[in-house]
Amino acid sequence: MVQVNVNYLKLKAGYLFPEIAKRVKLHSQKINSLDLIKLGIGDVTEPLPKACIEAMNKALDEMGTNKGFKGYGPEQGYEWLREKIAKNDYLDRGCQILPEEIFVSDGSKCDSSNILDILGNENSIAVTDPVYPVYVDSNVMSGRTGNPISEGGYEGLTYIPINEENNFRPQVPSNKVDIIYLCFPNNPTGATISRMELKEWVDYANQNNSLIFFDAAYEAFIQDENLPHSIYEIEGAKNCAIEFRSFSKNAGFTGVRCAYTVIPKALQGLSLENEKIDLWSLWNRRQSTKFNGVNYIVQRGAEAVYSEEGKVQVKNLINFYMKNANIMRLELQKSGFKVFGGLNAPYVWIKVPDKMTSWDFFDYLLEKANVVGTPGSGFGKAGEGYFRLSAFNSLTNVTNAMERISNI
Amino acid sequence: MVQVNVNYLKLKAGYLFPEIAKRVKLHSQKINSLDLIKLGIGDVTEPLPKACIEAMNKALDEMGTNKGFKGYGPEQGYEWLREKIAKNDYLDRGCQILPEEIFVSDGSKCDSSNILDILGNENSIAVTDPVYPVYVDSNVMSGRTGNPISEGGYEGLTYIPINEENNFRPQVPSNKVDIIYLCFPNNPTGATISRMELKEWVDYANQNNSLIFFDAAYEAFIQDENLPHSIYEIEGAKNCAIEFRSFSKNAGFTGVRCAYTVIPKALQGLSLENEKIDLWSLWNRRQSTKFNGVNYIVQRGAEAVYSEEGKVQVKNLINFYMKNANIMRLELQKSGFKVFGGLNAPYVWIKVPDKMTSWDFFDYLLEKANVVGTPGSGFGKAGEGYFRLSAFNSLTNVTNAMERISNI
Repeated sequence: MVQVNVNYLKLKAGYLFPEIAKRVKLHSQKINSLDLIKLGIGDVTEPLPKACIEAMNKALDEMGTNKGFKGYGPEQGYEWLREKIAKNDYLDRGCQILPEEIFVSDGSKCDSSNILDILGNENSIAVTDPVYPVYVDSNVMSGRTGNPISEGGYEGLTYIPINEENNFRPQVPSNKVDIIYLCFPNNPTGATISRMELKEWVDYANQNNSLIFFDAAYEAFIQDENLPHSIYEIEGAKNCAIEFRSFSKNAGFTGVRCAYTVIPKALQGLSLENEKIDLWSLWNRRQSTKFNGVNYIVQRGAEAVYSEEGKVQVKNLINFYMKNANIMRLELQKSGFKVFGGLNAPYVWIKVPDKMTSWDFFDYLLEKANVVGTPGSGFGKAGEGYFRLSAFNSLTNVTNAMERISNI
Repeated sequence: MVQVNVNYLKLKAGYLFPEIAKRVKLHSQKINSLDLIKLGIGDVTEPLPKACIEAMNKALDEMGTNKGFKGYGPEQGYEWLREKIAKNDYLDRGCQILPEEIFVSDGSKCDSSNILDILGNENSIAVTDPVYPVYVDSNVMSGRTGNPISEGGYEGLTYIPINEENNFRPQVPSNKVDIIYLCFPNNPTGATISRMELKEWVDYANQNNSLIFFDAAYEAFIQDENLPHSIYEIEGAKNCAIEFRSFSKNAGFTGVRCAYTVIPKALQGLSLENEKIDLWSLWNRRQSTKFNGVNYIVQRGAEAVYSEEGKVQVKNLINFYMKNANIMRLELQKSGFKVFGGLNAPYVWIKVPDKMTSWDFFDYLLEKANVVGTPGSGFGKAGEGYFRLSAFNSLTNVTNAMERISNI
């Protein structure tokens, strides 16, 4: 009989969000499911921007004609989209990123886990705690960790705590790690990182020949003009960082699927013989062999995000969700909760009442208020005692949820 | 510095199709590029079926409204699509495949390489020779082979020749292999497999506890009513086979991206302690963690393939391309070529003239006729001396290409 990949057997329970879905489904059977307000998974709720719809409509029409039909596109994404990204997201912010350093994909979840394909299993890995579970699970599944630890986490990973004590800012480790995952604005805590703090990480990485995976999926939510949107705003980052970006949260593409990953040509790794190998070529080979590019219609939709109307519409979406975040932050504080995040990110991170675990609070909120959130412990050991609420919902639902919570 | 995945360094040259693209680009600079006729990569050229366009239009409209907007869908695909697939592609052909055994994805190229994620590296692997390069390359990249062999191929893989001597039918090996890749109708040879021949493979797999990866991406092109469309038409296959299917070639979705993989719940593998582990759960976990589902609009388009109009329109597309294949087969024979395939597959597989290699013939056809094909050796050592021409093009281009070839 075939041998399975036994690393999968190390995984604890289910992936966080399916577990939440299970509990919600069970609870829904007892109530009018219309009463349920979901502030759990970070899934957008507003319709796609008009500019995207229009561009996609046009592209769809083309696909119905002999002249306009497009078959396989480039695995790396169409040149016209990569150029728009390079200009708007990088050059205009002073980052010298070339279109060919941008790889368009169907999602950051895929990219941030598939990226491990091109790297050796010997590299030591650091993640923050709490953290987006996909980073950890993809390491477990590919055999880069030991067994689960009973108190939480896995052997072989370095966990960098982010908590109230350090103001949710990860500190550079004293030892050398090869790969570090950073996500800012942070999921789940909603925390941000300043230019100076990020520079510390870039300097650490360059001094230690480490590689940073920088997940900037939430950069569009930044309100504070002084905060960096991209790690490449920091000098030296092109020598030590891969950046993940997505159209999911800015333009509401969670059900459309489009993202991109930046692999600067300067990035290098080592072969067993200590020969220098550029990572761009490896990723290019990976994507050419194991991926077939993104839907043409979707790429036209993504391109429209950079049109004048698209930019305005995306900004309106961001403002909409950030208004929600603001209401949540203020109302939860009024209700007596200690609240973090929600200023430059669509997540608020609250401290759960004493003597409750994160999952206790999850069940409590579900039972008493029909409100779904995400237990902090689902993001790691250091997330225990915290709870994430997402601002992705209608204004009515958000205000109703806050009212219900204040009335418990 | 980070260690790279050194298995990538074993890969020979580029992936086949980028290499072809490079040579074509070079040649295009010397000619009027409109003169070029591409019968190389198996990429469809006809517009999407009307039923799919209509369904996608409707879905796109929904995405622009508050009420109809869809965010993240299920990682496994929407239930309504999986039900249609199960009914039309399986139940109606007598195969008891359940909707939950079907995993919708963005492509068979992804699935047939990602599937290795859930299996141990110790398994012995067999592929036919010639073969779709992705099967081999994904094994190399994940460390399942040794080094490249100078005469072609990689150490550690079992190659099962398909050639004129065995009428392009792979023979079951005398030794035990854990995993076998089969593709029928075959890419690149256009050969088919009969029920009885496929039963030999299923019996072999069940006797040896092997796992078959059955790639049926071209099943829609089958004209002979006696040929199996799915491996699950063979008794016992649910205990030993995973099947890959795609909307790329039947409904022309190469630029739209939708496919699916069937993992029967009965399929099992072994842990290190010889505990039985069901493969369905592992794949479900893989997809939930490393993938975020397929675009909602695309899934509505795929659903329309199973509507009454959709079925007729897909059949017309197939007939269109098969008419091309027929012309190619007859004209090439008239021109003196030995021709295989093209009867139940959109590919003809021709023997190249004596003393030429496959790449010689590629350059020769490109230079003399401005026709692009695919050199057989690009599909493996046993493909040397053969050449693949694809029927995916307009009738005009196909007849022109045949005329030019006959006039060389």
